[in-house]
Amino acid sequence: MITLYGYWRSTAACRVRIALNYKQISYSQASVHLLKDGGEHHTPEYKTLNPQSLVPTLLDDGFAIGQSMAILEYLEEKYPETSLLPSDMESRAKIRQLCQLITCDVHPLNNLRVLQYLSEKVEINDEQKQDWYHHWLRTGFKAYVALLKQAGGKGELVSNGEYSSGKELSMADVCLIPQIYNATRFNFPMEEFPELMAINNNCLKLEYFQNAMPENQPDAE
Amino acid sequence: MITLYGYWRSTAACRVRIALNYKQISYSQASVHLLKDGGEHHTPEYKTLNPQSLVPTLLDDGFAIGQSMAILEYLEEKYPETSLLPSDMESRAKIRQLCQLITCDVHPLNNLRVLQYLSEKVEINDEQKQDWYHHWLRTGFKAYVALLKQAGGKGELVSNGEYSSGKELSMADVCLIPQIYNATRFNFPMEEFPELMAINNNCLKLEYFQNAMPENQPDAE
Repeated sequence: MITLYGYWRSTAACRVRIALNYKQISYSQASVHLLKDGGEHHTPEYKTLNPQSLVPTLLDDGFAIGQSMAILEYLEEKYPETSLLPSDMESRAKIRQLCQLITCDVHPLNNLRVLQYLSEKVEINDEQKQDWYHHWLRTGFKAYVALLKQAGGKGELVSNGEYSSGKELSMADVCLIPQIYNATRFNFPMEEFPELMAINNNCLKLEYFQNAMPENQPDAE
Repeated sequence: MITLYGYWRSTAACRVRIALNYKQISYSQASVHLLKDGGEHHTPEYKTLNPQSLVPTLLDDGFAIGQSMAILEYLEEKYPETSLLPSDMESRAKIRQLCQLITCDVHPLNNLRVLQYLSEKVEINDEQKQDWYHHWLRTGFKAYVALLKQAGGKGELVSNGEYSSGKELSMADVCLIPQIYNATRFNFPMEEFPELMAINNNCLKLEYFQNAMPENQPDAE
């Protein structure tokens, strides 16, 4: 019995929903509202599941695990038959590099707790906040595209492919698509990145992506 | 033939050095000076290796791979006989959760490019910069310790162990120790976290940690 503790708009939770859907793992969702009453992720009950007070947390038969990339690797090991990683070592490394580019160097800079800190403690205004948000998105997406085009033999990705790895869906797309959703939500000009929008549009044709998107969650507002 | 492109003070490069040393993999180092001439990581030559303009990059017989966690997983797959991950799936997940806590939610907020942005664009002063730096360290380290103490059966870590996972060295220590080094460098009161300092002191007794520390690198200043 798997329960995913998340929030409809969390891009990190969205990654895990996509992976669960793709792997056809049955799960239920528990909504952790990140804004109501100062944030339900700060309650003592939730902190026993996830001491970081962040979503998502996957609860698998009593075993609680946080951090979306740790969850994706766990699901990969537990359900290897529907893999989101290529078979050769170098390509796997390249896919993980793309994943970490998004999950380490884009998303954590732009998530709720950081934006709240910048507003409250540094007192940046809305324009500065948008500049900050867009700056890290643009920096990350530029590098993502450059990696898709990086020549170099082993593990080489295919630029202008259907997906990040070329012809095959992978964990990189699982990280990329929710980030694009978020970028659009924050008025980022995604037209600057036609290669990424092509991947986005291909992925969103797939039911397991559609069903994982924020607006299709039970707690969507 | 493996070459590690890094910088002595980079905590992300330090993680990879520890793993290479632990796995007894022979490698040479290429120094990428992050401050000289506006940063050598911004040169066109380096960007062909690493389009993100970040260190480290591992160059393995012509195959270039960036992002320290992707590199650690690659080394894990290529050299599984000297593993930095436990054997059972749940413990592996917990170790990866600790790694990602550091590599996603502490380090990227406090690295050079972010501090430079905050100084130049948001014009925060030195006191605000230290507050920012210490805030994310404290938040992350508190959660790290709470995870060490989190009860819950499968994959459970051992609090007050010699290492993050209890008795065995793991990838979590590889991520934690460089972060503690950095915290100390930025005047963070590590005495708030005796459990982490105990792990730190145990790890630093080991030669493969010592040899990876910043001050022992050829490009140390």
